Amino acid sequence: MAQSTGPRICLVGVGLIAGSLGLALRGRPEIGEVIGLGRHPEQLQRALAHGAVDRVTVSAADALADVDIVVLGVPLGAIRTVMAEIRPHLPEQAVITDVGSAKGCVVADVEAEFGGPLPRFVPGHPIAGTEHSGVEAAFGRLFVDRRVILTPTPQTDEDALERVQRLWAWAGARVVTMSVDHHDRMLAMTSHLPHMLAFGLVDSLASDPSHEEIFRYAAGGFRDFTRIASSDPVMWRDICLGNRDALLEALAAYRGDLEQLTALIEAADGEGLEGVFRNAKQIRDGYLQWFEDRVDED
Amino acid sequence: MAQSTGPRICLVGVGLIAGSLGLALRGRPEIGEVIGLGRHPEQLQRALAHGAVDRVTVSAADALADVDIVVLGVPLGAIRTVMAEIRPHLPEQAVITDVGSAKGCVVADVEAEFGGPLPRFVPGHPIAGTEHSGVEAAFGRLFVDRRVILTPTPQTDEDALERVQRLWAWAGARVVTMSVDHHDRMLAMTSHLPHMLAFGLVDSLASDPSHEEIFRYAAGGFRDFTRIASSDPVMWRDICLGNRDALLEALAAYRGDLEQLTALIEAADGEGLEGVFRNAKQIRDGYLQWFEDRVDED
Repeated sequence: MAQSTGPRICLVGVGLIAGSLGLALRGRPEIGEVIGLGRHPEQLQRALAHGAVDRVTVSAADALADVDIVVLGVPLGAIRTVMAEIRPHLPEQAVITDVGSAKGCVVADVEAEFGGPLPRFVPGHPIAGTEHSGVEAAFGRLFVDRRVILTPTPQTDEDALERVQRLWAWAGARVVTMSVDHHDRMLAMTSHLPHMLAFGLVDSLASDPSHEEIFRYAAGGFRDFTRIASSDPVMWRDICLGNRDALLEALAAYRGDLEQLTALIEAADGEGLEGVFRNAKQIRDGYLQWFEDRVDED
Repeated sequence: MAQSTGPRICLVGVGLIAGSLGLALRGRPEIGEVIGLGRHPEQLQRALAHGAVDRVTVSAADALADVDIVVLGVPLGAIRTVMAEIRPHLPEQAVITDVGSAKGCVVADVEAEFGGPLPRFVPGHPIAGTEHSGVEAAFGRLFVDRRVILTPTPQTDEDALERVQRLWAWAGARVVTMSVDHHDRMLAMTSHLPHMLAFGLVDSLASDPSHEEIFRYAAGGFRDFTRIASSDPVMWRDICLGNRDALLEALAAYRGDLEQLTALIEAADGEGLEGVFRNAKQIRDGYLQWFEDRVDED
């Protein structure tokens, strides 16, 4: 009884993020049904086998009939195409949200497709994930105690925002809201820039003639540092293109700081170097403490 | 009986690395005694309480009488001073080794102090450690299955090298040898450069006006990436100064690669970006697989 009255959720593209959301939502009394929509039957079958969805289909008309919430789990570069494909089949009252790592480009794509703001679209970004991808890596507790950032625009419908907030709360996440620009600038610094540095480091070392030996002797610190360089190349290509301005700004600031650090080493300025390292350690330790407190707090 | 005939080891400066070596060696039948030598009685008492040494002293004469192997566990910047202090008390046949993260500067300091090559000095570097420091963080299994690089010079005594190889083998390490220059160049790329990037990132973000919020929303990838920025500032100051040339070379190569990556983003060159990321992921995944195989292999 409860199942049939709860919202029907359609996951468009069932990879790590959407698949984990499906695993978190399925079987909850508040949820009606979780439907997987995609292009590739074999990928959909894997999502079904992994337990991420109740049923799957390659037909947008079939998937979207009477749907209440549509979650776009596709790469940033596919948002516009997918919106064009699902648009003719969207029920008028359906709420749409996405999980992309940059928000300005998603809002721009949706508005381009709809010829203006779409009040029932709620841009979203769960701050969770691993360096793995694909539905096989999905797990239902991925969002527990993790932050999900929603970035409603001035035109976003209040009711649509509340529905998406509830959806993520059911998955155990802590939902916060902020502006699109603020999100993109902050994520450029905390996530997109570090990924560029890690990809750049592996790429730089790989071009060294003795790279096999280099990787052989690398210690645990290096392994941690470069873990994020194992992330999905297409996803990161799209993030670079989608959040280009904020990422370039963060890269410019970082490159300036690295230049200064290089100058201190060139000058053999021990006092200056120790000051930079002491400052970084103090901030990092404070952040770590805060992070551990947060993990423990509930 | 066995204890009294085994080698006496003197640890000069009992922090994370030397303390862990002491914990690994103490109580082994091959070892005679582990003595802690330092300047600060309260630090020595902590080493004793932590079980890293059999006895402690602030007297070099006392510590070095009849000693067989001296392990310098002090920061790179203190090597020359410590060598000057212990030199008058060194038994002629005693073998000396160190644990510093750069080797050229240590060899130069030792040779400067002794007015030429010291055949019974074996430069060493265990590729192990954590972002913590101090003897309280020491543990006896730190070196198990980890590599220890010894960098004998053309003048290094064969017997001295063998003794130091045995010492690390008793601690469970895999001992390899290579030239001083090769070590310094390789470590600049796999360890010193990544530390600079992590320190630089934390420093860069900390100078942003909204840094508190930035750190609050940073995800697990960021935490891993910046873990090494919590390392000891004095140690890293000394590494920068001690391995300056190789580190500057690695930084220059990296900055060039980062410039190219930035140019790809500026040009919105999706194909080029995907190529870089795909290459990095492939290499990183291959390295990870190798690393896991290594951990499992015995």
